[in-house]
Amino acid sequence: MIQKVFTNEFFLTASEVNAQREMPLSRLVTTLIDTATCHANLIGIGFDRMIREGISWVLSRLTIDMPEVPTVNRTYRLSTWVESTSRLFSERDFEMTDAESGRVIMRAHSTWMAVNMTTRRPGDLTPIWEGLDIVTDRCFEGEKGGKLMPVTNPEREHSYRFAVSDIDVNRHVTTRRYIDLITDMWTLDHYEAMRPSRFEVAFKHEAHYDEEAHVVSAPHEGSPEISDVAIEVNSTPCCLARIRFETR
Amino acid sequence: MIQKVFTNEFFLTASEVNAQREMPLSRLVTTLIDTATCHANLIGIGFDRMIREGISWVLSRLTIDMPEVPTVNRTYRLSTWVESTSRLFSERDFEMTDAESGRVIMRAHSTWMAVNMTTRRPGDLTPIWEGLDIVTDRCFEGEKGGKLMPVTNPEREHSYRFAVSDIDVNRHVTTRRYIDLITDMWTLDHYEAMRPSRFEVAFKHEAHYDEEAHVVSAPHEGSPEISDVAIEVNSTPCCLARIRFETR
Repeated sequence: MIQKVFTNEFFLTASEVNAQREMPLSRLVTTLIDTATCHANLIGIGFDRMIREGISWVLSRLTIDMPEVPTVNRTYRLSTWVESTSRLFSERDFEMTDAESGRVIMRAHSTWMAVNMTTRRPGDLTPIWEGLDIVTDRCFEGEKGGKLMPVTNPEREHSYRFAVSDIDVNRHVTTRRYIDLITDMWTLDHYEAMRPSRFEVAFKHEAHYDEEAHVVSAPHEGSPEISDVAIEVNSTPCCLARIRFETR
Repeated sequence: MIQKVFTNEFFLTASEVNAQREMPLSRLVTTLIDTATCHANLIGIGFDRMIREGISWVLSRLTIDMPEVPTVNRTYRLSTWVESTSRLFSERDFEMTDAESGRVIMRAHSTWMAVNMTTRRPGDLTPIWEGLDIVTDRCFEGEKGGKLMPVTNPEREHSYRFAVSDIDVNRHVTTRRYIDLITDMWTLDHYEAMRPSRFEVAFKHEAHYDEEAHVVSAPHEGSPEISDVAIEVNSTPCCLARIRFETR
């Protein structure tokens, strides 16, 4: 019997939180990815199964809504399930509750595609789904994101050269480094007054060791509480993001 | 009955390793610190006990010897115990074995002191040890480090400004960022050919948000396989390190 909804419980320790005693976005995103990986392995669509078709999972799009931010010394319950499967994409949802109160504090929607390990081109997922009944009828109660656009009139810019500590097992820049580069566009003072309440990110191109990243940001037209951010390498966007802050 | 030797088991996943499919030094160090914290809490010398005396633990000195490097998809067993206690210092040792083979792959020795939370001056540990029997007679089989010196004739230099993602719950720069700054002084090519086999670090001063770090390194006199590294802020060393590489 396949476990269609997988739930992971974790305790947020002091060494994992930021100056605001909260879970940083980069750690939230890597926790979502790790939990998805765990579930994928469990239901037979993990790395071992994918590699037999010469393909591998790539996170393409992620939208996070945070009614509350996970804070230090509390236990959280993170659930994930597959919402849809198709030839080129799979949608996966997440929901995080505060274990004590049961309140939903985060909802996330993600879109994954497969990449051919040899050609690095999009891979065909059809053989992966064959004979598997993994899609739930559990609804996603959050708001899926729209298309993210490049930043045309940057208000702020920052340059960064990717170092050894930014490189993962596939020799690409880690998701953690991307997210930290995005959230580092604001000051510590800003985070004292504001907190991220919604975060959208699209991964467009892989960046590599020793490449120079150019991070640009600008307020979203007509919505000053929302900002658009892009990470570019040689003028090619590697990562597009949109972040909404709300007053604490 | 106090658990004098505390053992933690962990599985090293793909998302935790570097391009060489190995545990990065920064992750090894944070794992040692987290395991020490866990054990300290367990035996009644953790944060809750310390804060009643107005003091807090600070890692002052750490020496790591690695006969082997932890690699992806393996289970490791990390043990830690208190070697000595005194008014101003406590020594704590670590040993990591490969869970399958039982081989010792890492030994570490650490020196901790207490800092007064108000004055930031060294704190008196005497009341902490009262009535506690926590020191083991288990020997440390590694080689404790010597005094680390500033880098006088830097061969290489790198500048870095601390960002929001580098700041911890105490508003200081994270240990992870220090260690990554040190290991990032070498290229990806270097790590393809060489691996760190010994690492020594001394934490001298706390660095803060938006401070500009100056990282300098030079080969150790008379020992080209050893390098000295220093992280300085406004010409004050925050962190001194020594790293030995061996050919793979």
